[in-house]
Amino acid sequence: NHIVVTGFGTSGQEAVNELLARGTDPREIVVIDGSEKALDLAEGLGCNVLCGDSTRDKTLKDVAIHRARSMIVSAGRDDTSILITLTARHLAPRLPISIVVRNEDNELPARQAGATTVINPVSFAGLLLAGSTSGKHIADYMADLAASGGRVKLNERPVLPQEIGQPLSAIGTGLGLRIYRGDHPIGFWEDGARALQTGDCIIEIVEETDARAKPDDQ
Amino acid sequence: NHIVVTGFGTSGQEAVNELLARGTDPREIVVIDGSEKALDLAEGLGCNVLCGDSTRDKTLKDVAIHRARSMIVSAGRDDTSILITLTARHLAPRLPISIVVRNEDNELPARQAGATTVINPVSFAGLLLAGSTSGKHIADYMADLAASGGRVKLNERPVLPQEIGQPLSAIGTGLGLRIYRGDHPIGFWEDGARALQTGDCIIEIVEETDARAKPDDQ
Ligand SMILES: [Ca+2]
Ligand SMILES: [Ca+2]
Repeated sequence: NHIVVTGFGTSGQEAVNELLARGTDPREIVVIDGSEKALDLAEGLGCNVLCGDSTRDKTLKDVAIHRARSMIVSAGRDDTSILITLTARHLAPRLPISIVVRNEDNELPARQAGATTVINPVSFAGLLLAGSTSGKHIADYMADLAASGGRVKLNERPVLPQEIGQPLSAIGTGLGLRIYRGDHPIGFWEDGARALQTGDCIIEIVEETDARAKPDDQ
Repeated sequence: NHIVVTGFGTSGQEAVNELLARGTDPREIVVIDGSEKALDLAEGLGCNVLCGDSTRDKTLKDVAIHRARSMIVSAGRDDTSILITLTARHLAPRLPISIVVRNEDNELPARQAGATTVINPVSFAGLLLAGSTSGKHIADYMADLAASGGRVKLNERPVLPQEIGQPLSAIGTGLGLRIYRGDHPIGFWEDGARALQTGDCIIEIVEETDARAKPDDQ
């Protein structure tokens, strides 16, 4: 029930820092990299480390990939990251795998290789840049939603038994944005959001309660 | 009343593509770059172009920076981007300036140079990666919020006269998330959100109505 992080370059390091900021125990994180120098950094944070090549079955088996709760792939090269994803998907059919790709053309192949989440940093930056021209607070609000600290965070959780039959707008834990009913997304404005059902997954905005929360608006 | 985009590398291109996808007229965009090849691309999209060095006052004056409605700075190097920001801020004290920085250490200097929005692609990717380990829909929802298309978008607008005195939860245009009252952010759960005031700025999630909207959830 650990998190496997393969590739400990800038993106991998940022991801681990954020996981720790969210309260993840570093002993639940296993970092794989080919560079001893990168692994020294990870070890310094308290993470478990393995020096190896994550495109090999053996490496992923050594970190018990089939028992991991999720995997972060950011190998620095899209081809390597996609091969790691294919290898991991083969060994762990239901593992959530998040991959960083740098080239937009590789987003679809990454999904085809079995990634559940595909993140393209440059593409996302472009979206934020464009959004920032239509309002000076947009990018800051997005950053607050994505990051620990600040005032709010985006949360995903299963519906609670006592919420069944109630509208999404009535949940008491946060502001309900979207329901996933099976794989079908239902917006807060849609008829399907008038009555929550067993098995629904809720996306909500919740207030940050962490003591380390700090305002991110200057 | 144009948008100045300085630096037409990957981030700058992604930003312009997104602006066009949001319906911005390409003739309202002025792209500055030192490379004729980059400018050919921008010209192909219908944008105005200027070959020049944006760290020079003259270049920015040539694009009437003092009359621009916003500026996007993504020069590829943090030092260059920050110098451009300083130059632009000097010439246009109230211009909204969004800057891309690649090194976390440069986020604060970028703000000090006068940027209103600072975007670090790698850092943001790390946040999304970490977030994706706590829910498989989190990153997709963030991408939908940030991008045109999909089902929702994040919107920033002034309060309407008929909304004064009403609670944030009663707005009819979308789901109200946050109010900026002056520079002070007020969350949907806070007392200040019970009655909107003149001058409030509202952050809301609205349904995408664009005909080109397409589901982004697979
Ligand atoms: Ca936050
Ligand atoms: Ca959208």
